Amino acid sequence: MTLHRITVIGLGLMGGSLGLALRRAGVVAYVVGCGREELQRRAIALGAIDSGSKDAGDAVAESDFVFLCTPVETSIKLLAQIAPRLKPGALITDVGSTKAAFAAAALEIFGASANERVLPGHPLAGREVSGLEYSSADLYAGCLWVLTPIEGAAEESSISTHRELRGALEAIGARVIFNTPEEHDRTLAYTSHLPQMLSSALSLTLERAFGSPKNPGLQVHAGGLRTMLRLAQSDPVMWEQIAASNTGNIAEALEALEAELRELRKSLGSPEFRARFEAAREFAKFLKG
Amino acid sequence: MTLHRITVIGLGLMGGSLGLALRRAGVVAYVVGCGREELQRRAIALGAIDSGSKDAGDAVAESDFVFLCTPVETSIKLLAQIAPRLKPGALITDVGSTKAAFAAAALEIFGASANERVLPGHPLAGREVSGLEYSSADLYAGCLWVLTPIEGAAEESSISTHRELRGALEAIGARVIFNTPEEHDRTLAYTSHLPQMLSSALSLTLERAFGSPKNPGLQVHAGGLRTMLRLAQSDPVMWEQIAASNTGNIAEALEALEAELRELRKSLGSPEFRARFEAAREFAKFLKG
Repeated sequence: MTLHRITVIGLGLMGGSLGLALRRAGVVAYVVGCGREELQRRAIALGAIDSGSKDAGDAVAESDFVFLCTPVETSIKLLAQIAPRLKPGALITDVGSTKAAFAAAALEIFGASANERVLPGHPLAGREVSGLEYSSADLYAGCLWVLTPIEGAAEESSISTHRELRGALEAIGARVIFNTPEEHDRTLAYTSHLPQMLSSALSLTLERAFGSPKNPGLQVHAGGLRTMLRLAQSDPVMWEQIAASNTGNIAEALEALEAELRELRKSLGSPEFRARFEAAREFAKFLKG
Repeated sequence: MTLHRITVIGLGLMGGSLGLALRRAGVVAYVVGCGREELQRRAIALGAIDSGSKDAGDAVAESDFVFLCTPVETSIKLLAQIAPRLKPGALITDVGSTKAAFAAAALEIFGASANERVLPGHPLAGREVSGLEYSSADLYAGCLWVLTPIEGAAEESSISTHRELRGALEAIGARVIFNTPEEHDRTLAYTSHLPQMLSSALSLTLERAFGSPKNPGLQVHAGGLRTMLRLAQSDPVMWEQIAASNTGNIAEALEALEAELRELRKSLGSPEFRARFEAAREFAKFLKG
């Protein structure tokens, strides 16, 4: 299962780690990296790519597979930009956190051949840190990698490049599953975007209550607070684009959570509180196990 | 700095760890443990206590220091129960997560001598797990231990038992600070009780959206979700009593958070979202550092 020549556009944590992982697994023959010149140099030095290019069109022209490793709205713009330069038979995939907007853009750009040209993907392997310097060949080992084919979430594709991509992802340790772009986005609104918004909202609430993070009152906290603020340190550019590309689903999840918070608040000090708390505990324990 | 004979009431994670830590540090001569007979046996076997008693009054009768290691409302009831059996000059402290209700109860029970008899405390050393079996002599090493004297939060007390207690806590590695019971409870509503409620509300929201934790859709989540659900696994009995004894402050903190969530939700997909997200990020980063 060799992907021949591939292009990785976006030389951050995701793209850098992808280059490192695919090269280590021996499933790519040659990796072109696209990003700022300084990033190209560093990615070559790290061993994440073989050569670099600043222009996305030039970078994809001779490749069999293209990985868009940029935030979701950037990837949508790149899709239009690289489409005319794509080699016949080449497949584009991405690592964006939302899938419906990207899939819709692919359909608009490629029309009837969209399913053959583009296979949207999402590895659930983010970290709070970002940047090439944190890249690791192990980032995707054991992670869930959701593929959301534009024409239905069938496991077995008749398109050979789809099968090759899946094989390469499994070769770097990812557990590949299939979903529709819409279902993916609705689920992720609850399981990923909602926790993120909560962590950010908690941070904003503390800022309003204490003024400064250096307020001595704030020293009176335990590990639980730091745990709940971990996600709030995530990359704003990425999350701005997630929020913009999944607004409806995230808003729905937030409204549901706001309702639970109100009910929990009203139940403070009543027997109902205990029942709610225990239900929450059971669910959280099960999910962990 | 030796506490002579002490009594630990409540043989769970906090009480068990306290016995282990004080004995290891060599700052207690004899530890009486109070709890169910089975717990007494296990605590003796673990080396957390020297002997046990089922009756709280009997357990405290000959001790110089009494540690109430039970949830806050249980500790308030025990305070009334042990008051008539207390040895002259003995000091009671506790490890409850809220302090104002406990301090008020002490004032009511002991009147003018409350400050001499009772020094409320709160080690910020909880875990999601509870129970004697998780006890560790290291639980309090490096943890913040807030003491909230009933008559003002002065660092230097003229009461010798206050000074002895502080010395023993420092001997087991705690960083002792002073606060008023009211300020403590208001701060903790934001830094501890709010994160807990958030984690529980997130779990309830997911339960409503997915029905069962075994819903296959739920497998599509990353580490962030598990992080945010860690606190939801905490002990319901303890939290029921925290919620009941700090209702006003927690409700205020929750309302503030609900407002932030609404604003964040309305800003999804707008430039304002980025500004909010970045402010949250800065605050969270600072607090971590």
